[in-house]
Amino acid sequence: MTNLDVHDIARSARTYGLRGYFVVSPIAAQHPVVQRIVDHWCAGAGTRRFPERGEAIALVELCLSIDDAIAAIEAKEGAAPRLVVTSAKAGPNRTSYAEEARHITTSARPTLLLFGTGHGLSDRVLQRADAFLEPIAGPTNFNHLSVRAAVAITLDRLFAVIAAPNNPI
Amino acid sequence: MTNLDVHDIARSARTYGLRGYFVVSPIAAQHPVVQRIVDHWCAGAGTRRFPERGEAIALVELCLSIDDAIAAIEAKEGAAPRLVVTSAKAGPNRTSYAEEARHITTSARPTLLLFGTGHGLSDRVLQRADAFLEPIAGPTNFNHLSVRAAVAITLDRLFAVIAAPNNPI
Repeated sequence: MTNLDVHDIARSARTYGLRGYFVVSPIAAQHPVVQRIVDHWCAGAGTRRFPERGEAIALVELCLSIDDAIAAIEAKEGAAPRLVVTSAKAGPNRTSYAEEARHITTSARPTLLLFGTGHGLSDRVLQRADAFLEPIAGPTNFNHLSVRAAVAITLDRLFAVIAAPNNPI
Repeated sequence: MTNLDVHDIARSARTYGLRGYFVVSPIAAQHPVVQRIVDHWCAGAGTRRFPERGEAIALVELCLSIDDAIAAIEAKEGAAPRLVVTSAKAGPNRTSYAEEARHITTSARPTLLLFGTGHGLSDRVLQRADAFLEPIAGPTNFNHLSVRAAVAITLDRLFAVIAAPNNPI
């Protein structure tokens, strides 16, 4: 986990209107480090220099497990979230971004989008998924985007507002 | 400039098939630091652990100015690049991503996409632009994406290959 995983993903989440960003790490020793970053920007010296960063970082919640994140969402929203998983690898039964955007809009349940770092999400998590998004691909066979880039692109594909040509948004 | 500016943007550039990634900083003292990162992943211990990172980082060229980057492109490609600038702010005469994707495909000249960090690109640079891309917007008025996220989203909008629904790429 890096400082910029917290910052970049929080700023992308805030831009695209997400209601929360759960940083999941089973390593309890990492939590105070991440909490210090959150506190710095939400309550500390950082709020004066870059108030908009605090607005993004306020979305961050630290969890020890995905089940803890699911429980927190259920407590807040009154329904368990749909689990939508992502991977850089292709495979059968992947859901397109347009299709998933429709699910998010029409479902009565909240949605939890899951991203892994390093080796990706575990098979145990992938097996619990309600939907598996298609991999992000450019015109090459290189599929090693950073998790920060993958989250930004995924949120843009699901939630972007595209202006009409030559008309400012 | 951060370590991850180099890494994340290089990996995004490699994914979407760009021919180069120029890191421009007028502060000469920063160059050896960036060069050490490049060397670590392209020639040092990093190549053994993560060879795909070297493949991305190999795109990186360090420059003191945008004019140096333009000269390097002209020397390599035989034509001066079109300058395409970006900003988080809306304004008149912005070009859509679909329109710019067509320009890139049809132009005989190479294209240099320019992104700024912190306060964005200078007015002097904006005035030289051949095209000014529309800002990236989500369904909120928050427009503080990281440069790493903005580059990833821009490249995806210009160069993504979208699979057919439920068919792996």
